[in-house]
Amino acid sequence: MGAALENEMLAETTRGQQPKTVRVAVVGATGYAGRELLTLLSRHPAVRVTHLMSSGREGRKSQPVEKSHPALRGRFRIACDPLDLNPLEPSSVDVVFLATPHELSLEVVPSLLHRGLRVIDLSGAFRLKDSSAYPHWYGFEHHAASALEEAVYGLCELNAPRIRKAHLVANPGCYASSIILALAPLVQAGWVDLNTGIVCDSKSGASGAGRAPSEKLHFPEVNENLRAYGLFTHRHVPEMLEALGIEGDRFTFVPHLLPITRGILSTVYVRLKTARPREEIFNLYHSFYAQAPLMRVYGDGSLPEIQSVAHTNYTDLGFAVDGRTGRLVVVSCLDNLGKGAAGQAIQNMNLMFGFPEETALL
Amino acid sequence: MGAALENEMLAETTRGQQPKTVRVAVVGATGYAGRELLTLLSRHPAVRVTHLMSSGREGRKSQPVEKSHPALRGRFRIACDPLDLNPLEPSSVDVVFLATPHELSLEVVPSLLHRGLRVIDLSGAFRLKDSSAYPHWYGFEHHAASALEEAVYGLCELNAPRIRKAHLVANPGCYASSIILALAPLVQAGWVDLNTGIVCDSKSGASGAGRAPSEKLHFPEVNENLRAYGLFTHRHVPEMLEALGIEGDRFTFVPHLLPITRGILSTVYVRLKTARPREEIFNLYHSFYAQAPLMRVYGDGSLPEIQSVAHTNYTDLGFAVDGRTGRLVVVSCLDNLGKGAAGQAIQNMNLMFGFPEETALL
Amino acid sequence: MGAALENEMLAETTRGQQPKTVRVAVVGATGYAGRELLTLLSRHPAVRVTHLMSSGREGRKSQPVEKSHPALRGRFRIACDPLDLNPLEPSSVDVVFLATPHELSLEVVPSLLHRGLRVIDLSGAFRLKDSSAYPHWYGFEHHAASALEEAVYGLCELNAPRIRKAHLVANPGCYASSIILALAPLVQAGWVDLNTGIVCDSKSGASGAGRAPSEKLHFPEVNENLRAYGLFTHRHVPEMLEALGIEGDRFTFVPHLLPITRGILSTVYVRLKTARPREEIFNLYHSFYAQAPLMRVYGDGSLPEIQSVAHTNYTDLGFAVDGRTGRLVVVSCLDNLGKGAAGQAIQNMNLMFGFPEETALL
Amino acid sequence: MGAALENEMLAETTRGQQPKTVRVAVVGATGYAGRELLTLLSRHPAVRVTHLMSSGREGRKSQPVEKSHPALRGRFRIACDPLDLNPLEPSSVDVVFLATPHELSLEVVPSLLHRGLRVIDLSGAFRLKDSSAYPHWYGFEHHAASALEEAVYGLCELNAPRIRKAHLVANPGCYASSIILALAPLVQAGWVDLNTGIVCDSKSGASGAGRAPSEKLHFPEVNENLRAYGLFTHRHVPEMLEALGIEGDRFTFVPHLLPITRGILSTVYVRLKTARPREEIFNLYHSFYAQAPLMRVYGDGSLPEIQSVAHTNYTDLGFAVDGRTGRLVVVSCLDNLGKGAAGQAIQNMNLMFGFPEETALL
Repeated sequence: MGAALENEMLAETTRGQQPKTVRVAVVGATGYAGRELLTLLSRHPAVRVTHLMSSGREGRKSQPVEKSHPALRGRFRIACDPLDLNPLEPSSVDVVFLATPHELSLEVVPSLLHRGLRVIDLSGAFRLKDSSAYPHWYGFEHHAASALEEAVYGLCELNAPRIRKAHLVANPGCYASSIILALAPLVQAGWVDLNTGIVCDSKSGASGAGRAPSEKLHFPEVNENLRAYGLFTHRHVPEMLEALGIEGDRFTFVPHLLPITRGILSTVYVRLKTARPREEIFNLYHSFYAQAPLMRVYGDGSLPEIQSVAHTNYTDLGFAVDGRTGRLVVVSCLDNLGKGAAGQAIQNMNLMFGFPEETALL
Repeated sequence: MGAALENEMLAETTRGQQPKTVRVAVVGATGYAGRELLTLLSRHPAVRVTHLMSSGREGRKSQPVEKSHPALRGRFRIACDPLDLNPLEPSSVDVVFLATPHELSLEVVPSLLHRGLRVIDLSGAFRLKDSSAYPHWYGFEHHAASALEEAVYGLCELNAPRIRKAHLVANPGCYASSIILALAPLVQAGWVDLNTGIVCDSKSGASGAGRAPSEKLHFPEVNENLRAYGLFTHRHVPEMLEALGIEGDRFTFVPHLLPITRGILSTVYVRLKTARPREEIFNLYHSFYAQAPLMRVYGDGSLPEIQSVAHTNYTDLGFAVDGRTGRLVVVSCLDNLGKGAAGQAIQNMNLMFGFPEETALL
Repeated sequence: MGAALENEMLAETTRGQQPKTVRVAVVGATGYAGRELLTLLSRHPAVRVTHLMSSGREGRKSQPVEKSHPALRGRFRIACDPLDLNPLEPSSVDVVFLATPHELSLEVVPSLLHRGLRVIDLSGAFRLKDSSAYPHWYGFEHHAASALEEAVYGLCELNAPRIRKAHLVANPGCYASSIILALAPLVQAGWVDLNTGIVCDSKSGASGAGRAPSEKLHFPEVNENLRAYGLFTHRHVPEMLEALGIEGDRFTFVPHLLPITRGILSTVYVRLKTARPREEIFNLYHSFYAQAPLMRVYGDGSLPEIQSVAHTNYTDLGFAVDGRTGRLVVVSCLDNLGKGAAGQAIQNMNLMFGFPEETALL
Repeated sequence: MGAALENEMLAETTRGQQPKTVRVAVVGATGYAGRELLTLLSRHPAVRVTHLMSSGREGRKSQPVEKSHPALRGRFRIACDPLDLNPLEPSSVDVVFLATPHELSLEVVPSLLHRGLRVIDLSGAFRLKDSSAYPHWYGFEHHAASALEEAVYGLCELNAPRIRKAHLVANPGCYASSIILALAPLVQAGWVDLNTGIVCDSKSGASGAGRAPSEKLHFPEVNENLRAYGLFTHRHVPEMLEALGIEGDRFTFVPHLLPITRGILSTVYVRLKTARPREEIFNLYHSFYAQAPLMRVYGDGSLPEIQSVAHTNYTDLGFAVDGRTGRLVVVSCLDNLGKGAAGQAIQNMNLMFGFPEETALL
């Protein structure tokens, strides 16, 4: 007759696989991505959180999780400790999530890998294959070449086979995820007129900017406002170009800060080499993402909104095409803390440890 | 060492009990409480949703769930049908959730009970024991006396034993839940100076007012605004008085509409007959709610905020006391769609069918 | 040394001109644009509001202004009457503001002009020169050809000389104003590579959609959300094309609904035929708008935000250019109820009656 | 017939009085109250702003006003200088507005008075008559006794005669204004049952907390949230008690932080000694505020909302009474930056310099 189909599917797959419990450490547990990781991990049926650490607070004392995250009061027996790599050993931990600034990730990843741990890094420190791009976009020389080499860009819908075997996953940026997933099918099919250029206009909730207070993120400066920033200079651009395999000269990305907490909507403008009807475009996306349980492509002409995906791990895609001129507008939505950060990190963990991709994410 | 303690606990309890799958129908699936019910049910490991119906749309056609709830796209195989009681039979359904207007609940509950189904009604139609109060507060004569008699007021933390056996559960109002849970320990202990009176100042997110558009809930009329309403006339007052066993003459409740979507914060003002130190008050609450896994009492002087409970099923209580005068202010927070509506309904179902109370609610 | 320079300037100009009091009628006084008109008119030193009428309420009774607009309680002695053209005569009125649906404007404008009244119409009924475009974009045949012919498109910064003498001013759309003012200097200078195309991504506050309740504008459907709409079909497109003198095939406009009440930010993407340094672009804008007291062009690399212009009548422009590729992004901000509707209407009135353009608008 | 009555009235009064231009200095021009002061001053027909200074930035350089306040770009010829009292002399300044922390006000006020300048201080440094209350509520000994003695509490509706002659006006707190204006008529009439006690539950927009970034005011911590704070400890309590002439033991005030930028709504709960009908209560308020052009009392049973007063200088009062028990709830609204801070400061200036009270405030 009918059913909540996910828990059925999940039950089925899980039953077959009998995955054992994964022991997890979270470094950078006190920020927003950390909170989201903890929330999702506490729902995961086969995870045991063994260590929580806050980055950049070395020397401070342990404190209960609710001190940073009142919403998690009563959810974790263990406290959040100052950063200390020593207890992170294969005897007690299987995977380490790093929700840390990229400078810190750069520093600790080689050591964690060397201990034989698997790492999922939410920062940008290992996202770019081209290490020579780091000084320009991130302001530092990348001195961890071998770790960088083995890093897999953790956009699950594109790289699942390599993620399954990865020791180091570089979790993608939130803007980058929303845009790459919107463009990859079109670009790989060779349909986009790259001469005309691509315009990506993204709008993100404020949690994407992190938890550190600043004038720019002071409530009255964000509320009832909208602001563009980072024109031609945003760090997520190079990972988009690498993942899509295109040049930057005709690719323009402008992010905007929305007066909401969670969610990204990217409006992506391209011209097709050949004008095509809606069905054809839908079919391209549909087959491209046929194996991706957390992608939803709208074929009925409706468009996703941020509310369609907030507090979920879905990426929703909708589009409108001018059948005469070939102008195509794709609207891509995801939750910047979910699919754009912590949710994708969990999805990567699921792939790495043989769980159904969507475990704890529905 | 440490762990995400809930999934552990849950696993443990569930293992012992082996509950079989509960077959669920949701009537009123297209509103906000309906959406929240569907979201929670889809996460429940032992539920099978067999029927979805929209109320007040008799004669219209079935439509996919995502038509009303884009966020649930792809989550349910079954469609949402027009209201029709005929298929709701014990052979295919164990429990019916009614997220319907109280007039409709009043009409269909007797028939559903008569068929041998258990019912959880989210409306106010069966909340008041005193049927003579209905004309004044709800504007109708209550003609379903026997159903009303067997109804159990579904505030899980107060009535769990009776809820377990109930055939009809009247799910409490959102404001009422937040205030009753804040006051019950104090009132039952006889500590409150009822002569001075009780003031309850509540603030609720706009989803509590339902999904029907109106000028009062038009975005620009709610945004950047706050409005008091229903002074001395709000329908949740009589259920508060009944549950607390107090008279209304010295009990004042004023609700306000907040420019947010989800959450209620109630600020409750009483004077204690005897001034008492903070520890004593904390101990009272702590022991009163010792068996309640979804209550969190703050003993450290901090206060809950709406963000502490949004998108959860917790009720959080904090307080400040003036040790000299005995003035006590209790701050009570819950999510009006969660603990204040759909979450509490699921909690009631868990009790009725022998699941751990918090299943699917963490 | 220094001073609040505007009131000085204003005092100076006014002293010289001695304009007599203008008698004003407002039809459509109960909507958001109507409220903004009343607020601004009540601050105008040389205006007397003689008639307030609500559109589409023929047959209903007069009611005090505060019934529709609590914020205006005590500000107007006259009531708001049902629509009735009879009292609108040159003996008692100089100018009529129409904040009415375009169907109603289309109907009443010829009659008002025939009586010898000047009219400022905030609807779209007289914005397009090409009457044959109305069936496609507005869904009606335009049967008021002679009124249409004498209508002046009321974008003050482009058409001031003609507005001064106009009998009928068609006040521009809010999106259109923000985009035309951003593009006109570039397009008129011939700098834009029209082959590449122009992308205009606009984000507007919800008051722009008017005061009528609907599911789309229900608070919880707008709050914590962002939604694109009207792709390839928005009515403001043809007036943009007409005002800029360009073709639509390479011009793409996508509006989005922001979870705020007031303000529009448009992000406009073009490629220049020749790459140019920032100074050159600034100089073009600066000289183009040298005589426009309500335009502010940012030359220092900073970008306007919605908060820079909310509750003002300014249009603020900022930009970033990629000096190597000629990609140029212009950010344009205005208040959709101010410069995008009522404020621009007052600015038009100021021009028509010989007041300094910015009177009552600072 | 009808008219925008305020500008008429204003014109009339002003014509009779011929006030000369007042020269104004603003110290603390870079905060939110400073911005609001500048906005209002730039609309005032008889003010010349001669000095702008930022507090706490001694040693830094002058910078244009738009650096702090993009919305004021192009509005002021003078720059904002570091704090320096030297140029503030009666030869160039008539009145100094201090929008500064109370520690700084305490320090500079005596010196400004000594130079013969009139001062309007927006801080709390001179609000309490009882200097011995400062250590408890403000944490410092008040060492400026003679200035404190001559300070007039600048709640215009209560103290206009003394404000007119004052050299030092202590502008009231925003919460205090909203509550004192709601209670003064009732308390002065002796109607309130003080034994039962008074409960004041206030909700304020975030701009009231100032412009300094902090975790508590970080956008995602305020948005979609509500939080109570300062229970039994808020600094505005003693000025309320002094102004109302009541004791604190039965007076409870709890402020809450709303997820909006501007506005305060206070819900005030009292019991009347004698139950009275609505008309009688309305008449009391109406006659109490008969001479107050910026007070609006609602007699029709409707209640003010924050939107009724945001961006205005009005205080709106509405109420509901239980005619049987004498329970009375008064709802009081004002704009915390307007009547609650900068607007009231301008109103004080208007009284001090013989302008109509509402000049530049409508």
